Amino acid sequence: MPDYRRRAAREAMSVRLDVNGMIADTVGGAGVARQEVEMLATRAAEIAASLKARRAAGALPFYELPYQKDALTRIKALTTDVRAESDTLVVLGIGGSALGAKTLIAALGDATPRVAVADNVDPWSFGQLLDNLDLARTTFNVISKSGETAETMAQFLIVRDLLLRQLGAVDYAKRVVVSTDAESGTLRQVVHDEGFRDLAVPAGVGGRFSVLTSVGLFPVAFAGLKVDELVAGAAWMDSRCGDAGIWHHPAHLLATLLYLADTQHGQNIVVMMPYSDRLQSFGAWFAQLWAESLGKARTVDGTPAHTGQTPVVAVGATDQHSQLQLYAEGPADKIVIMLRVEDHGRELPVPSAYADLESIGYLGGIGLGQLLNLEQQATELALLKQQRPVITITLPQINLFTLGQLFYLFEVAVVFAGGLYRINPLDQPGVEESKRFTCGLVGRKGFEEKRAEMEAWWARRRSDYVL
Amino acid sequence: MPDYRRRAAREAMSVRLDVNGMIADTVGGAGVARQEVEMLATRAAEIAASLKARRAAGALPFYELPYQKDALTRIKALTTDVRAESDTLVVLGIGGSALGAKTLIAALGDATPRVAVADNVDPWSFGQLLDNLDLARTTFNVISKSGETAETMAQFLIVRDLLLRQLGAVDYAKRVVVSTDAESGTLRQVVHDEGFRDLAVPAGVGGRFSVLTSVGLFPVAFAGLKVDELVAGAAWMDSRCGDAGIWHHPAHLLATLLYLADTQHGQNIVVMMPYSDRLQSFGAWFAQLWAESLGKARTVDGTPAHTGQTPVVAVGATDQHSQLQLYAEGPADKIVIMLRVEDHGRELPVPSAYADLESIGYLGGIGLGQLLNLEQQATELALLKQQRPVITITLPQINLFTLGQLFYLFEVAVVFAGGLYRINPLDQPGVEESKRFTCGLVGRKGFEEKRAEMEAWWARRRSDYVL
Repeated sequence: MPDYRRRAAREAMSVRLDVNGMIADTVGGAGVARQEVEMLATRAAEIAASLKARRAAGALPFYELPYQKDALTRIKALTTDVRAESDTLVVLGIGGSALGAKTLIAALGDATPRVAVADNVDPWSFGQLLDNLDLARTTFNVISKSGETAETMAQFLIVRDLLLRQLGAVDYAKRVVVSTDAESGTLRQVVHDEGFRDLAVPAGVGGRFSVLTSVGLFPVAFAGLKVDELVAGAAWMDSRCGDAGIWHHPAHLLATLLYLADTQHGQNIVVMMPYSDRLQSFGAWFAQLWAESLGKARTVDGTPAHTGQTPVVAVGATDQHSQLQLYAEGPADKIVIMLRVEDHGRELPVPSAYADLESIGYLGGIGLGQLLNLEQQATELALLKQQRPVITITLPQINLFTLGQLFYLFEVAVVFAGGLYRINPLDQPGVEESKRFTCGLVGRKGFEEKRAEMEAWWARRRSDYVL
Repeated sequence: MPDYRRRAAREAMSVRLDVNGMIADTVGGAGVARQEVEMLATRAAEIAASLKARRAAGALPFYELPYQKDALTRIKALTTDVRAESDTLVVLGIGGSALGAKTLIAALGDATPRVAVADNVDPWSFGQLLDNLDLARTTFNVISKSGETAETMAQFLIVRDLLLRQLGAVDYAKRVVVSTDAESGTLRQVVHDEGFRDLAVPAGVGGRFSVLTSVGLFPVAFAGLKVDELVAGAAWMDSRCGDAGIWHHPAHLLATLLYLADTQHGQNIVVMMPYSDRLQSFGAWFAQLWAESLGKARTVDGTPAHTGQTPVVAVGATDQHSQLQLYAEGPADKIVIMLRVEDHGRELPVPSAYADLESIGYLGGIGLGQLLNLEQQATELALLKQQRPVITITLPQINLFTLGQLFYLFEVAVVFAGGLYRINPLDQPGVEESKRFTCGLVGRKGFEEKRAEMEAWWARRRSDYVL
């Protein structure tokens, strides 16, 4: 394909961000005024320049993930090998280590080859999954950057024992692929000792930014999906996020509007509402990215801040029949981001019938996907009429190229939003205390004090507060 | 079983509400002080008395759903017939008409007989579902109280046409069971004209309160689950919600604490966080109940109010690896309700291995379910240490009896909360405008003005706000 035609095809598959419903000109006082954005322009330019410099210095490696040709080659080669031996891939990972693959498999995966994502330590669901596997045709992808994630390690120990018992000490190692830090960590040592095949999680890329690393790409490639297209989508969004000012930069504009909505308009909740069942798990991916990146106790200089919008996931049209009541009439504390899909990949026409029953008959002749999309527009306007701001993001289709754009758009946006809030969007100190208490309760050496602290608190509980 | 032993078995299966983590005595200033509850005591008693009187007058029929023996008999008889003819039941319904069955099937349903819930008009997912059905062994349960729900009617027209073409004009009617209002509505007329089998949705019970009517019970019975136990669980919770004061009434106490948290402590978000994969869809059920019942523009006397906590669904332990960062360090605007399951129904012991690798080795010997439950405790305490209030609800097991209690607990709680907010928890005026716009866009007669309104708004959009 000549370049100009490729470019035209890319343009036609561009994800579009429509912020009309966020701007005071159109939605009224609940929206962000143009001047509010202009007043932030200097700061926004400084943050953009700082991020650009850090990117150039290699300090923000997630930006470069669409351009890792060697990593992609390695992933594809391993995929070919593993697919020759296995019909099923089971991902053992939790949080960011699971959500990228889970989102893509839910959106685009077919039944075969099968990828199952085990992202919890629920003995019922994990047990059911294990019960139904043909171990000789299954590969387990153990994913943990640190190599110490308790849930994933517990799953791994159970699976390892099962494989050892069923396949024996020689064959069992062939059923495991480990994705972990390239250099260090417990799992790296396990790989070395046991001779498992492995993939590297690049240094400096946290779980929630890992969908374009081996963490997301290997399971997706195993499922038969074209990872090149995913990566190309991210690169395309990168090319659209250039040096132009805030009004022309999709990610920075998105971040700026959400930041102003939160800090200036009391809209501390952001609802991600895809109008497509297949994008529901994109909502979960967005929620972890937004919550974990922006929910911070302190700014980078240590000032207490307690920042962060709370993400909520809804699905259109379904949740119009419940959540919408709250969104339209409840507190004016929300921004709704609607994901709209122009072409759902198939259409189901509604046949005409019951011409005499007007309240059903009017539906005859419409397509189901057309109805879904009209409902999106109708609900957008219903919300705007109640002065509830809406951002609409349109995907021409649900495919790897459009999803690659979406991932990259929100990753760039959340890092920029971190700059606006003056917090570090890349750390997550707030999840550690719970891990320490768990170690104390399990009886891990060195955590005796946490256990004692826990018991002291427990002793204060009053039985008359338990009904 | 003698009565005293039955009672002891019921006691052992009681769902327990622990509010220690909400009370200022234990959690500090972010919690609700005992005096705050006491100050509401007179109002609470008035609301309780008013609800009791309305219940006695038959004005709140949802309270009596655990005692509808005739309806249960009818549902069971129909289930026996339909199961003899079908291996699969497809529920066509949306919102409250789908969520009860969806929750129970997700928690307790097995693979066979299969119940699929089609609760959206996504042509891709609905098409995939239809592609894989053996129509001669499938029954469709069309659920719409009004008989005019656009999405459900569109699905129904597609299915009806498919059945007519594949099974012919005689047999197709046997493949449909309609659940709708007993007396009136478009679907009632369709039942009459086409001779479909039908079930009645009791008058005065809205979709979000319908899980204990034919809407929830028929699909659940088809799945082979004992609906008597579900209903018995609800009745058991009813018996625990007596005339005792607020501190001894699980539903009223729950509602009061959440109301005070919202209105006095700025905790306008309530996170439902089950520590069990199987209860994730209970979170969705709770979210629709809480959002749609309490998200209201006006009080009962017409005063603008814009009430309602925003429900969020998280899953433990998974979301400890993302959302927890926001819950622990972000704004102090949340109450977390944790659902804890004592006995997960099976246990997977973690084998000992890698004794020399301390960061994995300490997990050896623990059970996976035990780990999950310790993480719940650890996370609860980590949140409380950050002055983030937590309510813990413990289910001895996940079964129909405990889920019946849970449904009834929250239904009674939300109606009581409606009293505290002085709003009507049973209506949903805010979802109508979107429906009117959809009718306008589809071209339904009588909705021409809505279409014009929509087009006028659309014309105001600026193209430079689309990136």
